[in-house]
Amino acid sequence: MLLLRAVVGRRLPPLTQLRRGSSRFAAGAAAGGGRRGAAPVLAALLGLGAVLAYGERRRRSAQTAQATPAPRYPVYTREEVRRHRSPGDRVWVTHGTEVFDVTDFVELHPGGADKVLLAAGGALEPFWALYAVHSQPHVLELLREYKVGELSPEEAPPSPDAAQDPFAGDPPRHPGMRVNSLKPFNAEPPAELLTESFLTPNELFFTRNHLPVPAVDPRSYRLRVEGPGGRALSLSLPELRSRFPKHEVTATLQCAGNRRAEMSRVRPVKGLPWDIGAISTARWGGARLRDVLLHAGFGERRDGEWHVCFEGLDEDVGGAPYGASIPYGRAVSPDADVLLAYEMNGEELPRDHGFPVRVVVPGVVGARSVKWLRRVAVSPAESPSHWQQNDYKGFCPSVDWDTVDYRTAPAIQELPVQSAITQPRPGAAVPPGELAVKGYAWSGGGRRVVRVDVSLDGGRTWRAAELAGERPAPGRAWAWVLWELRAPVAAGAELEIVCKAVDASYNVQPDTVGPIWNLRGVLSNAWHRVRVTVAR
Amino acid sequence: MLLLRAVVGRRLPPLTQLRRGSSRFAAGAAAGGGRRGAAPVLAALLGLGAVLAYGERRRRSAQTAQATPAPRYPVYTREEVRRHRSPGDRVWVTHGTEVFDVTDFVELHPGGADKVLLAAGGALEPFWALYAVHSQPHVLELLREYKVGELSPEEAPPSPDAAQDPFAGDPPRHPGMRVNSLKPFNAEPPAELLTESFLTPNELFFTRNHLPVPAVDPRSYRLRVEGPGGRALSLSLPELRSRFPKHEVTATLQCAGNRRAEMSRVRPVKGLPWDIGAISTARWGGARLRDVLLHAGFGERRDGEWHVCFEGLDEDVGGAPYGASIPYGRAVSPDADVLLAYEMNGEELPRDHGFPVRVVVPGVVGARSVKWLRRVAVSPAESPSHWQQNDYKGFCPSVDWDTVDYRTAPAIQELPVQSAITQPRPGAAVPPGELAVKGYAWSGGGRRVVRVDVSLDGGRTWRAAELAGERPAPGRAWAWVLWELRAPVAAGAELEIVCKAVDASYNVQPDTVGPIWNLRGVLSNAWHRVRVTVAR
Repeated sequence: MLLLRAVVGRRLPPLTQLRRGSSRFAAGAAAGGGRRGAAPVLAALLGLGAVLAYGERRRRSAQTAQATPAPRYPVYTREEVRRHRSPGDRVWVTHGTEVFDVTDFVELHPGGADKVLLAAGGALEPFWALYAVHSQPHVLELLREYKVGELSPEEAPPSPDAAQDPFAGDPPRHPGMRVNSLKPFNAEPPAELLTESFLTPNELFFTRNHLPVPAVDPRSYRLRVEGPGGRALSLSLPELRSRFPKHEVTATLQCAGNRRAEMSRVRPVKGLPWDIGAISTARWGGARLRDVLLHAGFGERRDGEWHVCFEGLDEDVGGAPYGASIPYGRAVSPDADVLLAYEMNGEELPRDHGFPVRVVVPGVVGARSVKWLRRVAVSPAESPSHWQQNDYKGFCPSVDWDTVDYRTAPAIQELPVQSAITQPRPGAAVPPGELAVKGYAWSGGGRRVVRVDVSLDGGRTWRAAELAGERPAPGRAWAWVLWELRAPVAAGAELEIVCKAVDASYNVQPDTVGPIWNLRGVLSNAWHRVRVTVAR
Repeated sequence: MLLLRAVVGRRLPPLTQLRRGSSRFAAGAAAGGGRRGAAPVLAALLGLGAVLAYGERRRRSAQTAQATPAPRYPVYTREEVRRHRSPGDRVWVTHGTEVFDVTDFVELHPGGADKVLLAAGGALEPFWALYAVHSQPHVLELLREYKVGELSPEEAPPSPDAAQDPFAGDPPRHPGMRVNSLKPFNAEPPAELLTESFLTPNELFFTRNHLPVPAVDPRSYRLRVEGPGGRALSLSLPELRSRFPKHEVTATLQCAGNRRAEMSRVRPVKGLPWDIGAISTARWGGARLRDVLLHAGFGERRDGEWHVCFEGLDEDVGGAPYGASIPYGRAVSPDADVLLAYEMNGEELPRDHGFPVRVVVPGVVGARSVKWLRRVAVSPAESPSHWQQNDYKGFCPSVDWDTVDYRTAPAIQELPVQSAITQPRPGAAVPPGELAVKGYAWSGGGRRVVRVDVSLDGGRTWRAAELAGERPAPGRAWAWVLWELRAPVAAGAELEIVCKAVDASYNVQPDTVGPIWNLRGVLSNAWHRVRVTVAR
């Protein structure tokens, strides 16, 4: 994966050349291929990552075998493995040519026992390919503790052909993106480009997919709306567009895992190693969720803990859709601007961003802005989805995977105040004279960023940066501000540049990341620090 | 003032003895007198502080005179001073027996030129008595730079009799309060008592007065409600009570200056030296502001920057009332629970807390909850009041009194997440065994406190505390949570106890106070740290 980044991280096409659609995409790729040319880069993006990851596992496996004499294991056929599909018959799985009895691990599986059982009696690979968390060496080491046998040498490995790859239908992507996982696709724009424009170009908008991108035929697409107290709707795309006024909102979306890489450097966490780019801004167009709910007969208010639950068309191998929910009050509030969006920066939604319809919940963690929306359900409780109940929550730094109880923490909705430096980059040698420091700042809940303080000396002295952005309505500051500070710097100086933002509630960012560390690596919003040297 | 604190800080009456009403108050005072007895303590509270403060100034003045030979100054009569009342005639003032020409200082006065001119041609003392900020040695030092003469020895000093003291009508107070300024009265409950009960007893509720307490006759009291788009109302107290349903809300109020003392230790700031007690919680009862506004014909929404402005019956020497405002959307929102309160913990409002009617704006800085309310005005702009425009705002640590521009920062409304340790107290020697650490946590905007992390080792390791409090409706967590952590501690250990809270938007407190320092000492919400020793 590191190799892959090195290949695609160089020589980006200028922003003005970025266009949409696969034929134009090829032109962009050609401009950006650099020494290796466009085609290999594209190929790498679409498949090489997975190949590399699998290769890495095999290499480690071989090393382990050399270090300690391999014990002799019984040999089984795939047919024999297939008989072990429940705890009563023992739960067996294969990985490569090895056979494992994971019966005792089923209840310990962090993602839930039901997910392990989907693989019972067969190969793990198709499942692991869906969840990047498994591409870590310790996962395979853990699995080895349960090894009970080898597959018969006569057995062919399961063929990795396109028909079996649930990600084979994913759309092409811009080669400039920094890829954190290919399957599912998770990628961020390079920091250097992130704040080049107030609206992030669609091709550079960070992409957080939990599952394969569904292929949706817009002609047969239907959005279901239902729940107690309202009448069920089934809306076609033309109906959604024509029956409800188009409402436009400029909103920043941020992944809960943005800046996780910094948190991992304190202590390892589980999750994709996002740098500072899991945040982007677009002008969204669509129907107000409020209008649709009122049209379906749901009222202005529901007291208590009522939620509006969303389901995507993206499904895991067990058929469970991605899902999330938001409080009813936010869904129906005229001031919360929640959209069922079908446009992104004036174009139809790209496939990676939820074509044909996605939710956009301004001011709230990206995980609630469900893509490829198939169902909106008013409910007396939060979404039962894994991603609402057992992920995207914050914990005390002392909580680990042995002690975590997801019921004790609320699902992340509004995010805390955030900022980061996009220019200069860490380790840069900047010229003496006037240094321009640039970055973004944003806060959840529509709380406007009112100030960004910048320090060039590690936080000892501060100056307020110049802010640029839209002038939002009070309490509806859904978009980031871009900021800049110009300051003279002396030749040869070592600078530790730091930024911290203040929002309209005067909330600030914490000084350091250690005390907000959490096992899942979310909510990483400590001061951002970048060390640079001023050239002589 | 320090002596005063030492006198009243000892031997408090137990909470169970605290009751309301002046006759019961006397009983509480008697229980708390300790060695010096109740009457002298009460007398000290009501007058001694000012006497001490003036004595302190005289002593310093004498020291200065000894250190450098006093220059000879011309001698003037009060009549001569009185002729210098405008910049054209020069602006002269007196303090004690000294005469000053402050013409060149008028425009530099942090509180505004108009405030200095109110004293032109006369004595400063009555004005300084209104504003505690002047009781600092550097103010007198600064004034000395403008000295031009002495008053004639024949002139008697202005008599400090009760008739001239605008604070002579202030109500009696509980001797347990820690007084930060007597005139106007500003006092906080001792930390040890602060979290003894979820609702703060009225007598111990922190008191933040900007001006003398007005004497209001409830029979002639009228509340005016007015503004464009509505009809003007003039409501008597019985009308306010009978025409609108009584609504009750448990809400914490916090002064923007809470924990200012910690900020002052980084660098001096202007303002009262609040410890951790400028925060308290009560059950408020009154009419919803929403109901009154709708009754007056104001609508459910006003787009843009419309505010609802409040004026108190408390006036400065120039006749300007205390004032503040909140956004119209909050004032009229059914979810924001803004009250025109006439009850506090089931009793009529005490005089120090706004009798007969005050505003209570839950989730918002105390400064907007205007007491002794005389006027509610719907307005296209924020309150023009000094306290809205030129106070209660946050700035970058680099902004000082030479560079501050109040127009560049928003008036504080919602406060950031906050917590503090009330037990044990700094410097305590605690017994070995199980240590109980207690405190409070609260956040602005109705954001529930979802977690409080406590460290006993200065922030290296953390544990989540047990939280106690009411279960609020979503987004309407107006009251604090009280928290407790019990942990074994070893004999002889030196502990640095730290707490930090997390609110429903996962905002956290900053690690240190230096980087949030601001010239006015507001918004002090860094981790709270208490060092104690475990006895052997």
